[in-house]
Amino acid sequence: MLKFDGDKIRVDEQQKRELFEMICQERSSGAVGYYDLPSSSQQLVEQTKEFAKDLFADIVVQDIVIIGIGGSSLGIKAIDSFLSASQSSSKTLHYLENSDPLQIIRTLTKLDIKTTLVVVISKSGTSVETISILKAAIAHFKIDLMGSKRLICITDPDSALDRFAAHYSLKVFHIPPTVGGRFSALSAVGMVPLTLAGYNTLAMLSSAEEKLETFFNYRDHYILSRAVQIAQSEPDRYIHILFSYASALEDFNKWFVQLWGESLGKKDSNRRRTKLIPVALIGSVDQHSFLQLIIDGRLNKSVTFIDIANRGVDLIIPDLPLPFLESSDIFNNESFADLISTQCSSTMASVKQSGTAVDKITLNGYSEDDIGELIIYFELLTSLVGLLLDVDTYDQPGVELGKEILYQTYKEKK
Amino acid sequence: MLKFDGDKIRVDEQQKRELFEMICQERSSGAVGYYDLPSSSQQLVEQTKEFAKDLFADIVVQDIVIIGIGGSSLGIKAIDSFLSASQSSSKTLHYLENSDPLQIIRTLTKLDIKTTLVVVISKSGTSVETISILKAAIAHFKIDLMGSKRLICITDPDSALDRFAAHYSLKVFHIPPTVGGRFSALSAVGMVPLTLAGYNTLAMLSSAEEKLETFFNYRDHYILSRAVQIAQSEPDRYIHILFSYASALEDFNKWFVQLWGESLGKKDSNRRRTKLIPVALIGSVDQHSFLQLIIDGRLNKSVTFIDIANRGVDLIIPDLPLPFLESSDIFNNESFADLISTQCSSTMASVKQSGTAVDKITLNGYSEDDIGELIIYFELLTSLVGLLLDVDTYDQPGVELGKEILYQTYKEKK
Repeated sequence: MLKFDGDKIRVDEQQKRELFEMICQERSSGAVGYYDLPSSSQQLVEQTKEFAKDLFADIVVQDIVIIGIGGSSLGIKAIDSFLSASQSSSKTLHYLENSDPLQIIRTLTKLDIKTTLVVVISKSGTSVETISILKAAIAHFKIDLMGSKRLICITDPDSALDRFAAHYSLKVFHIPPTVGGRFSALSAVGMVPLTLAGYNTLAMLSSAEEKLETFFNYRDHYILSRAVQIAQSEPDRYIHILFSYASALEDFNKWFVQLWGESLGKKDSNRRRTKLIPVALIGSVDQHSFLQLIIDGRLNKSVTFIDIANRGVDLIIPDLPLPFLESSDIFNNESFADLISTQCSSTMASVKQSGTAVDKITLNGYSEDDIGELIIYFELLTSLVGLLLDVDTYDQPGVELGKEILYQTYKEKK
Repeated sequence: MLKFDGDKIRVDEQQKRELFEMICQERSSGAVGYYDLPSSSQQLVEQTKEFAKDLFADIVVQDIVIIGIGGSSLGIKAIDSFLSASQSSSKTLHYLENSDPLQIIRTLTKLDIKTTLVVVISKSGTSVETISILKAAIAHFKIDLMGSKRLICITDPDSALDRFAAHYSLKVFHIPPTVGGRFSALSAVGMVPLTLAGYNTLAMLSSAEEKLETFFNYRDHYILSRAVQIAQSEPDRYIHILFSYASALEDFNKWFVQLWGESLGKKDSNRRRTKLIPVALIGSVDQHSFLQLIIDGRLNKSVTFIDIANRGVDLIIPDLPLPFLESSDIFNNESFADLISTQCSSTMASVKQSGTAVDKITLNGYSEDDIGELIIYFELLTSLVGLLLDVDTYDQPGVELGKEILYQTYKEKK
């Protein structure tokens, strides 16, 4: 169970109740599918395990390469990077997402198709990066498509990619069409590759389900209060900083930036442009970078700190007094785990003292439970803030124009 | 030579001239040392090469581990990550910066001291992370300090770390005391490790020197105009986004965020808090994340795109029409290098059309020339904007309070 601390929030009961009813209505409308994933994906995980047993009896797989971008890679990476800090998965995950040729070549050349499984993920099958990289992978690995066991597709039912998979009799897992890309971490998008890699995805889903059920039974008022606070303070405090005190949360930070930015960076129903902006930092390193600006820059920010209570492995700072470096001897015999957590609380105190709103989420450890609950917490928070700001949390109309110009450029070249 | 494009900037001659005189004055005051580095560090590089020849004849070095944080690691990483995309350095650089125990253990355990050189970097020798990790490294590798050839120090003359090095007869390289951490990439901080790793640091310095001399001969008006534009639009456009279209620029992005945020996120001489905020993105991936918010969120941003003209290696998208995935066939036979650059220009066009200010820097390739010029460009731009905003660009008073609270916490524990 995560622990939530922060500035006292005063939100009256009626506001919370109204907001709660709005999200219940959104859930019962059936238009937003991610609310059902923590329970519905459990069966999917069981099916994936059965599939994996047969597949891995048939072919050798040491590496799994994910071809996908945005919502089709950020969630998997966030969870994989976090969990792999403290455990080894049975297969190693790799990612092909950027259209950068150096990056693609570097990843392809280090893999051997005799021990690699290719997983292509796209809700529609139209992302230029994903399909172009898929073609490059097919050519590089000389994959014989018909009935290939080395290529799996994860996509919406009846999408272009789904039809492609059916045409070649490839294994396909479906994403519910009502689940948007950036809310899809707990769908087949995240659960299939992570199960294949050997992570305990069922624990992740159970933990998310418990959080979700507590929330929808109106027994989690903290998250409702946070959402009201964020929406109410939007004109003044619109820069939302996630300050994560663990290197393994760097990909989670990127997942958060997409979730928050793409969901809430919108025109509302009155065509008013929202102000909210996500920024994500890693402690302690970014104390030596962005912190100065939080303290002395304009007071338009709120900072959510993430700490980890039990880091599993630890390292003691040796009791090694070094001549002339005595100013650091106060930390001798202390543990790095204690140091980084104390840096987190000290920085939080200094940020609060400077007049910036703060709160803190403490994970218990580096487990599937922790990351499952953390993901559903931020998804619910995003949905709630979206309702209060009166935006369509689940679309992304702003990204279309650039794509149109790209296609137009190539059409004119032909 | 970099290429600079963007919206037309109208800045009158007198404003430019005044600003130019301000920066000339700052330079001639001698208080800001980084202006001299492109020329003065050339001798340092020659000395480092001589030193390296002797050292590597004496001991085997395959890996170099940098112990340093903030300005003592970000610049090295930025350059190393960028250059290693297209060339192999003769030694591999590793970084120990965060106080995260999992990260420290992971890095230490993959290194063998028989083939590793430890480089500890700190201007003062008081950073808690740096000194505590140094102690952990000494204990882990069982380094016999007196006269050790496996440990090098880079620090200010007469600092605590300098005295420590002298005490144990360790090799030390000095940072000019007038060069601040985040402006130190071209000092011993960056040049010594990168020279030891085998990069052509002289080319980097020559390129930076050429840019600097052109600027100080009043023959580079673009950068003056950009600075005036940024400072003038600060009340409205204060979120400065660097959108770099190359995976290898991810660490450069982090270097930029520190440079911009820590230099300009300040109270000015009237105690007014500045608004400027840096955000850094990677294309094409972040088109699927932050772009939505740039287009439809509040119009308070400007975006600098970075593209690379010649990516060296390339990969052709195979002419492989796939059934049902025909919508992407327009890219068949095109190169990924062309695709990512066209994504850059298409996204730039869409951002401009949405009403956001844009400009673009095109690097010629992945060379030392490119990165040297890019670094000095952003350093000069930061200094100029700092002068116009009337802040002390070179201090960081905001980070002290958190440190005080940290030390106080440990003092109370004892």
